[in-house]
Amino acid sequence: MSEDIIREESMVDLWNVWYSELHQGRAGLTLKVKQVIYSGQSPFQRIDILETYEFGRMLVLYGSIMITEKDEFVYHEMISHVPLFTHPNPRRVLVIGGGDGGTVREVLKHPEVEQVTLVEIDQMVVEKCKEYFPQVACELDNPKTRILFQDGAQFMAETDEKFDVILVDASDPIGPAEVLFQKNFHQNIYNRLNEDGIMVTQSESPWYHQRTLRRMYENLRSIFPLVRIYWAYVPTYPSSIWSFTLCSKKYHPIKDFKADQYRELGISTNYYNAGIHQACFVLPNFIKKAILNRV
Amino acid sequence: MSEDIIREESMVDLWNVWYSELHQGRAGLTLKVKQVIYSGQSPFQRIDILETYEFGRMLVLYGSIMITEKDEFVYHEMISHVPLFTHPNPRRVLVIGGGDGGTVREVLKHPEVEQVTLVEIDQMVVEKCKEYFPQVACELDNPKTRILFQDGAQFMAETDEKFDVILVDASDPIGPAEVLFQKNFHQNIYNRLNEDGIMVTQSESPWYHQRTLRRMYENLRSIFPLVRIYWAYVPTYPSSIWSFTLCSKKYHPIKDFKADQYRELGISTNYYNAGIHQACFVLPNFIKKAILNRV
Repeated sequence: MSEDIIREESMVDLWNVWYSELHQGRAGLTLKVKQVIYSGQSPFQRIDILETYEFGRMLVLYGSIMITEKDEFVYHEMISHVPLFTHPNPRRVLVIGGGDGGTVREVLKHPEVEQVTLVEIDQMVVEKCKEYFPQVACELDNPKTRILFQDGAQFMAETDEKFDVILVDASDPIGPAEVLFQKNFHQNIYNRLNEDGIMVTQSESPWYHQRTLRRMYENLRSIFPLVRIYWAYVPTYPSSIWSFTLCSKKYHPIKDFKADQYRELGISTNYYNAGIHQACFVLPNFIKKAILNRV
Repeated sequence: MSEDIIREESMVDLWNVWYSELHQGRAGLTLKVKQVIYSGQSPFQRIDILETYEFGRMLVLYGSIMITEKDEFVYHEMISHVPLFTHPNPRRVLVIGGGDGGTVREVLKHPEVEQVTLVEIDQMVVEKCKEYFPQVACELDNPKTRILFQDGAQFMAETDEKFDVILVDASDPIGPAEVLFQKNFHQNIYNRLNEDGIMVTQSESPWYHQRTLRRMYENLRSIFPLVRIYWAYVPTYPSSIWSFTLCSKKYHPIKDFKADQYRELGISTNYYNAGIHQACFVLPNFIKKAILNRV
């Protein structure tokens, strides 16, 4: 090289990539991205896996954060342990969605569970999570785990199997998971639960998605005798607060909470504990007003 | 005009301004800004008031969100009602910081309070909040409110007054509020509390600022006989979860909770309620592990 190349910048890092997930294009979370690990298209949706500086590896489906390494524990513990420490003998568990495997991992911390069936529409999600999130997908090859690559709504309409606990670990009500928020699907779940069965569905943000939550709550109350909303703090979900709706044919999540079994089992959790099992059902007034019409 | 001006854009809105508050420059909240209402410099700090699309009007001190119209209720209710529904007869209340007036507004919902003293270092914050946040600053001219424009740490070191409840409504431990997180200040608070007094201080994010919270907790435990951390979901604060630390000489926030008085008083709140008063002290495991070294 005969001539020096003069650069204006000295030693600056020119890679300055941000992932932002916005609510109605006007507010949201923004994360600095270290690296794009994978971007592809399955038959059902766009799949991206990014490495972020603050939350580690992150799975994004159709532009919406599903899990991050650093905070996935909250959602997966809360959708699983609340119903499984309520039902006295959850032997057969069904997970609709949840292809990342985090919910299955938590379900299998319960020794009474004989089989967990995962019905995931998108095989590529499972494959990519096994490859890039091994600590989340770690129980997908467990002999107790049965995976069916099938539309969850269609499975619920056609199966004649019965379950003790059904967990609806759906993505958002846009994209392939839309049917998993509809009343017909919830009626089918009721029909496929044993007579003392419990269902929990994720039910979106009680801060940003109050109309969705309210409609789901009203639909579910017309199907199940006991319906209770609970919530958790999830840093990377829209608004960072997330709701779950528990629907039960018989058992009460507080009165029938298996506190002794929780203590004896000594499972390792990073959010859930015996106090949280009860406190999570206590709703701030803004949620009560918006969803229940009372304080 | 003899010639047409050709523009590349058709009817697009070219104002596309975003306010982002980042944790360590790599993750945070981003808000679309409708308008900058005020920007100025007081003797102590930069003050900005922005109109955001999602959270309404917003007060920013030295680049850090203090309040927004839409979610300020959470912080102000939670710093106030937890101690004031614990102390049986809170007549004299002191607020350190809190120049926006939101904490004073909540304190004065308690009829036993005879006087609330606000010690705010920055007179311009009070003036601007009276002008731009009248629904927050609404009780600053109440005859029960006494405002002193003075350094809070200096006031605590020099006063010989005594208080039933002291609320440390400080901004972050960078900038003018740094001394309000130090042990010497907390010892002075202990000395100026009556023998059955209670102090609550905001204690930063239990997700992002665990070292700060842990150090505060340990310092406070060396001063007060009873120290309890509680938390709330605050959408626009860093990580959207916030902690408060309650320090008491005599009363226990759960055992001495005035549930009857809460019901009789019928105050209007949008987050706090009798269930939250108790549930907010239940900590997720990740907080227990980081701060208390146990689950």
